[in-house]
Amino acid sequence: MSQRASTLLRLEGHIIDSMMLPQLMDMVMDLGGSFEVRELKVGQRNDDPSLCRIEVFADQPQVLDEIVRRARDLGARAEHDEPVETARVQQEGVYPEGFYSTSNMPTSVLLEGGWVRVAKQEMDCALAVDRQLRRAWCIPFYEARPGLDVVVGHRGVRITPRERSRDTEIFGFMASEVSSEKPKNVLIGQIAAEMKAVRTAGGRILVVGGPGVVHTGAGHYLSRLIELGYVQVLFAGNAIAVHDVEAALFGTALGVNLTSGLAIEHGHEHHMRAINRVRAAGSLEAMVESGQLTSGVMKTAIDNGVEVVLGGSVRDDGPLPDVITEMGEAQRRMRGAIWQGGDDFEPGVRLALMLSTMLHSIATGNMLPAAVRTVCVDINPAVVTKLADRGTWQSIGLVTDVESFLHELVRAIEVGPAGEEAR
Amino acid sequence: MSQRASTLLRLEGHIIDSMMLPQLMDMVMDLGGSFEVRELKVGQRNDDPSLCRIEVFADQPQVLDEIVRRARDLGARAEHDEPVETARVQQEGVYPEGFYSTSNMPTSVLLEGGWVRVAKQEMDCALAVDRQLRRAWCIPFYEARPGLDVVVGHRGVRITPRERSRDTEIFGFMASEVSSEKPKNVLIGQIAAEMKAVRTAGGRILVVGGPGVVHTGAGHYLSRLIELGYVQVLFAGNAIAVHDVEAALFGTALGVNLTSGLAIEHGHEHHMRAINRVRAAGSLEAMVESGQLTSGVMKTAIDNGVEVVLGGSVRDDGPLPDVITEMGEAQRRMRGAIWQGGDDFEPGVRLALMLSTMLHSIATGNMLPAAVRTVCVDINPAVVTKLADRGTWQSIGLVTDVESFLHELVRAIEVGPAGEEAR
Amino acid sequence: MSQRASTLLRLEGHIIDSMMLPQLMDMVMDLGGSFEVRELKVGQRNDDPSLCRIEVFADQPQVLDEIVRRARDLGARAEHDEPVETARVQQEGVYPEGFYSTSNMPTSVLLEGGWVRVAKQEMDCALAVDRQLRRAWCIPFYEARPGLDVVVGHRGVRITPRERSRDTEIFGFMASEVSSEKPKNVLIGQIAAEMKAVRTAGGRILVVGGPGVVHTGAGHYLSRLIELGYVQVLFAGNAIAVHDVEAALFGTALGVNLTSGLAIEHGHEHHMRAINRVRAAGSLEAMVESGQLTSGVMKTAIDNGVEVVLGGSVRDDGPLPDVITEMGEAQRRMRGAIWQGGDDFEPGVRLALMLSTMLHSIATGNMLPAAVRTVCVDINPAVVTKLADRGTWQSIGLVTDVESFLHELVRAIEVGPAGEEAR
Amino acid sequence: MSQRASTLLRLEGHIIDSMMLPQLMDMVMDLGGSFEVRELKVGQRNDDPSLCRIEVFADQPQVLDEIVRRARDLGARAEHDEPVETARVQQEGVYPEGFYSTSNMPTSVLLEGGWVRVAKQEMDCALAVDRQLRRAWCIPFYEARPGLDVVVGHRGVRITPRERSRDTEIFGFMASEVSSEKPKNVLIGQIAAEMKAVRTAGGRILVVGGPGVVHTGAGHYLSRLIELGYVQVLFAGNAIAVHDVEAALFGTALGVNLTSGLAIEHGHEHHMRAINRVRAAGSLEAMVESGQLTSGVMKTAIDNGVEVVLGGSVRDDGPLPDVITEMGEAQRRMRGAIWQGGDDFEPGVRLALMLSTMLHSIATGNMLPAAVRTVCVDINPAVVTKLADRGTWQSIGLVTDVESFLHELVRAIEVGPAGEEAR
Repeated sequence: MSQRASTLLRLEGHIIDSMMLPQLMDMVMDLGGSFEVRELKVGQRNDDPSLCRIEVFADQPQVLDEIVRRARDLGARAEHDEPVETARVQQEGVYPEGFYSTSNMPTSVLLEGGWVRVAKQEMDCALAVDRQLRRAWCIPFYEARPGLDVVVGHRGVRITPRERSRDTEIFGFMASEVSSEKPKNVLIGQIAAEMKAVRTAGGRILVVGGPGVVHTGAGHYLSRLIELGYVQVLFAGNAIAVHDVEAALFGTALGVNLTSGLAIEHGHEHHMRAINRVRAAGSLEAMVESGQLTSGVMKTAIDNGVEVVLGGSVRDDGPLPDVITEMGEAQRRMRGAIWQGGDDFEPGVRLALMLSTMLHSIATGNMLPAAVRTVCVDINPAVVTKLADRGTWQSIGLVTDVESFLHELVRAIEVGPAGEEAR
Repeated sequence: MSQRASTLLRLEGHIIDSMMLPQLMDMVMDLGGSFEVRELKVGQRNDDPSLCRIEVFADQPQVLDEIVRRARDLGARAEHDEPVETARVQQEGVYPEGFYSTSNMPTSVLLEGGWVRVAKQEMDCALAVDRQLRRAWCIPFYEARPGLDVVVGHRGVRITPRERSRDTEIFGFMASEVSSEKPKNVLIGQIAAEMKAVRTAGGRILVVGGPGVVHTGAGHYLSRLIELGYVQVLFAGNAIAVHDVEAALFGTALGVNLTSGLAIEHGHEHHMRAINRVRAAGSLEAMVESGQLTSGVMKTAIDNGVEVVLGGSVRDDGPLPDVITEMGEAQRRMRGAIWQGGDDFEPGVRLALMLSTMLHSIATGNMLPAAVRTVCVDINPAVVTKLADRGTWQSIGLVTDVESFLHELVRAIEVGPAGEEAR
Repeated sequence: MSQRASTLLRLEGHIIDSMMLPQLMDMVMDLGGSFEVRELKVGQRNDDPSLCRIEVFADQPQVLDEIVRRARDLGARAEHDEPVETARVQQEGVYPEGFYSTSNMPTSVLLEGGWVRVAKQEMDCALAVDRQLRRAWCIPFYEARPGLDVVVGHRGVRITPRERSRDTEIFGFMASEVSSEKPKNVLIGQIAAEMKAVRTAGGRILVVGGPGVVHTGAGHYLSRLIELGYVQVLFAGNAIAVHDVEAALFGTALGVNLTSGLAIEHGHEHHMRAINRVRAAGSLEAMVESGQLTSGVMKTAIDNGVEVVLGGSVRDDGPLPDVITEMGEAQRRMRGAIWQGGDDFEPGVRLALMLSTMLHSIATGNMLPAAVRTVCVDINPAVVTKLADRGTWQSIGLVTDVESFLHELVRAIEVGPAGEEAR
Repeated sequence: MSQRASTLLRLEGHIIDSMMLPQLMDMVMDLGGSFEVRELKVGQRNDDPSLCRIEVFADQPQVLDEIVRRARDLGARAEHDEPVETARVQQEGVYPEGFYSTSNMPTSVLLEGGWVRVAKQEMDCALAVDRQLRRAWCIPFYEARPGLDVVVGHRGVRITPRERSRDTEIFGFMASEVSSEKPKNVLIGQIAAEMKAVRTAGGRILVVGGPGVVHTGAGHYLSRLIELGYVQVLFAGNAIAVHDVEAALFGTALGVNLTSGLAIEHGHEHHMRAINRVRAAGSLEAMVESGQLTSGVMKTAIDNGVEVVLGGSVRDDGPLPDVITEMGEAQRRMRGAIWQGGDDFEPGVRLALMLSTMLHSIATGNMLPAAVRTVCVDINPAVVTKLADRGTWQSIGLVTDVESFLHELVRAIEVGPAGEEAR
């Protein structure tokens, strides 16, 4: 084996039960290399890290390079690492060819002088680097400005896979619950506890809400959550706001009376009339101020200082003047609201409830770093699976109707877990 | 037109808004016939019947026969009707060729001496007739015994299409609600009111329950419904009973702890051990009597004298000794329980709640006369559509999880409509 | 009855089997009025219209007004009609209070001098009227400009409900097929025939396509449809175009190899690299011209002069420079493409295939007049039901995977109905 | 550590990449024990096994026992194993309390004299042992006969977890494909190849078919598969057989014409008449022999000697005389057909296609040993997930309509992979 190229890799942390070591061994053999374990210290207690030093071999240097590159993605460090390579952005909104494409997991880059943690971590971005300031941060396409240095290739980039906690946790490690057959009350009680913990720690809670929240008559539960101080940010579209105004002005949603459940003759017009009234007033806030809008989710959000971002879509009726119709601007506003109140490495939003909306939930999920806890609620299991399975570390999916979910959640927050009265 | 065959048909009732008249006109023209309206009196008030006498023409007598036959299915009467034709059953369990295949709607047959209403109305049966006793009744295949007279062809058979009430009703006329987007609380409140009305009138309520009722932690709500006197009959399979016993003995369902929502190590064995215990005891009732089974839906049902029919299936584990493993016997028992407490024309069961089970719900739906109100609850919209759309007059479908439904239903029965506390 | 207000209504067409007459009778009685049928001539043959003159009575004039208003929505004409009332737009983008909200059905307005048919019919718009030019047309919110006269109230507005053809038709009358259990080949054969008929008559065919078209490996079937001349307009989003470019450049979609079905290591980066390449090139067309893009749906569409409108959304990665990111502009472009090649009353697009995309399909469905035939294909029955049920006259829904649908459709167009080889 | 109990465990095989080692370490620490790795030899090549000798410690002997018990379930062997403990069956159909509940994975029991592999492996059974014959085998409840020795507890029982092959395989290791977004043709081509390999090796192929196979017009494709020799066993219910006979006699399924796709007037009666004809004839085979049944899946199956098991259900109409209405008997017949043609350890059936039926597919899946490859096809993703996720090693789920699947499968078998013509 003396002719072969080799290098020494080092793994630290929960390398066995987090699958780092087995995955690395697997990868090496898949690429035609081989390895010898030089040192293996296995941690004995929950919080003991393990250490493995492993020498990898390959017949060709480029294979060895590929092994090292992938090993780094698995969290390994080469004993002798090389700093990142960068190229300069030449064209507005275009990354240099060969750019490193980010994940949503904590990432560091090796500059001369040591490892630097990447700020504003987000998936599907490029990595901008300022060597003088020793800073690295994620940039979406629209922030690629000529002159910026952007990482190319995988050299000198390391991500930190999350280590699985041995404590039993509701927000599972890469293992989201999406069953409709499990006892739901238990989960909701744990979500309520988590929300309280986030607020106690000063974190912000984001609700991403679809029109179903109002359709199903659950708007007043969401209003209650806002009043109780459990919503700091609200992402939504035109439809939920229109339904909400329609409910406030006419007592209907899409022409269906929210109290009797019956369709109103010519009631569908209410939808259009609600839009027209807001357009005439100029904004939702103006309607609240002038006393035209006296109830509903939007009114409660405005009264309580919730940061609202309404992102438009091509199917919108109207839309309301408050809706952001330019999609780049909408994304900018969403990113701003997510990081507001946090720092470079941890966003202000610490927990996100995604309620019955696929479009805005996917948009949001793509922007969140992996550490933000997410709860996805939809009556369609396919939507829940799709949302819960976006590589976030800590996500829960519930297949249920949003009205039931919000009802139980409000109760769990106000008076503890439900179901006691009937037992 | 003098050469053509003609006959005079008579329609009575809400013939215009129930579509009887337009459908009849349509049908006549589709078959190449023509018609002239001889008399049309349109009712002015809600309860005024209308009357139409209409002469139909066709070039060939057999076409005229077909027109009259189909007109009868639409509820029309020929002014000069002929009595039914019958053939004798020759072979056990086999109808005579050409047998009349029943619907679930009220049906009458014309014997010498007048129209006789069919007893035990049910779809997909044959019509047995006893001319001496002036009796007619539906027989499933297994009741076809040599010697019985069975109606063949369509002559002398008339069904009574239900007339649509002009009162706004929750149990719609052939128009089931299956949306997951409508306010659910309203519907559940109305279902609760209907259940109270049924009980006040002495009717029986049937619950058809799938294993999800216990899985989702909703068993105690169903128990509560039973204790409150709102369940007289329970149709289910092996699985729900096993889960229920498992929950009572071990606190789990399929190995998942119903309180914490967490999977128990080796917990799946609980499922098998629960089955074994009941098999050892001989029956659920024996377990209750010996004090081995002290909680759960089955215990509550036994304590409260609910008529339980557990119908087996090919996928059953065990099964429990209480499960009827011969399918013909299971159907007989179900039919018996449906009609028990009623008379020949109206079954004792006046309302059926079908909760998260497709197999048993379809089996039940096929046996119910059209007048029995049905409520179908499932989280899968396709199941709800399929169940709600079985030609019953009065069905409601709710796309929601069964735990939420039962929780709200119990509350609506005990303390009135929900959602008040959070408004 | 002499004290009561009354008026004479006239119904013409297939008033009985289209339910016009029964619905009108029902409505009158629901509102507390009454009626007497003055004349009823029922058409005898398929193409014979019927005529009914019916006098309606009410105790109060405003009730009578309401009756007449609703009767007009049902297609009735008051014998003595009054012209429309209008109000002037005062504020850019805001309709006058009380505006008439349109449906997607053919509508006429009564001006001095007679009825005028409304141009550019579309639902959820207002009606602009130019009395001098004797013109009326639908305006979406963004076309409400100060000075325009807009219809308020329901007076003088008449819609023409579509009459049901007695011919058996695949594109059913308000009765879309959404079953996954029906023989699919038959439907697809009939769709192919309809597409041929549309093209022969010079109509344009619109495809609204979701990313699944490329994901599932069905892109080449769509390309084939384009080459065969069966697609003139393509509405889609960023994702399908990105997947298509990724497939052309790297042979993958979201990193999954389209030939082997296996995930490629680091393949997800292909998605981002494809976007970056198009951004660098400036547009899809530029990539085709420079020879960088040599295959795929977008290349075929560009080569064959298909009118492509890519509407953005808030969840887009990139997006491609071709994507319209301002939603009002996207809607304007879609409306333009729909009506291009037609006239004021009939759009150029005569048939729309909506393939696996809810967002763009709903956006499109909202813009189409009721007479445009639509075919909705999705593997999720809930999506198909939602799309097929938007009040278009002639829609078909198929619950199937889009790859199978396109495969069969291409075959049905090229070589006739499928399934022959295996019979 | 001298006071603690300890024992030496041995793991062999692909212990790292199959997760055996990490899971074991995790489990030991979860239970409060600790460990020291005594020896670790990691295999370097694909087929090199690894070996690990690990000493585990616990403060209490019962904890150590629990560790050893669970380690055995993970595939570890204690260096010093103890033989199984048994108890005698006392009551017909009832296992002894504390019985060992089986999985579907290869299992061995330690008797005096060495390890014995369990025959007729199946999940949710007990283990019968005959010490004299040195035999062990799975018994379902109904085979528990007084006098049999049955294993109790976990001592002396070892299961062999399947090792993951490093070859890329379509039938994934515990990782079923259930996406509707992947290229389907590729998968179907690989399934066809697997079916050919199974037949070449003399294995039997089982089709579990739901009524949708005939509904959707795909019956002739299944018939073709039978004729081509790719179906040896057919499990189904009453419905598919009735639909098939109805199609053969009347050209309809549930009254819908299979060629035109249109509903036939009074067509639903065909369903009942088809049942009656078979009941009159006595059996499907009698109808084939007498020339009454000349086409369809059942006729083809009978002609080609396919072993057919029709298992009844409580929702059956009729049923046909061929349907087994006693569920225990149906299960016995299914087990017989699965193992027919195999030996004690490998059933004759080597591959199962489960087509659009949840009831019979779950029943079948519960009976199959883990090594039998399964393919689950349904248009409902929830059904596919549920079926594909039953602990079999090698399962594929396809979310598609069964007609498309069978069409492509027949083509892939007859003429190679599809889609070529349109490329």
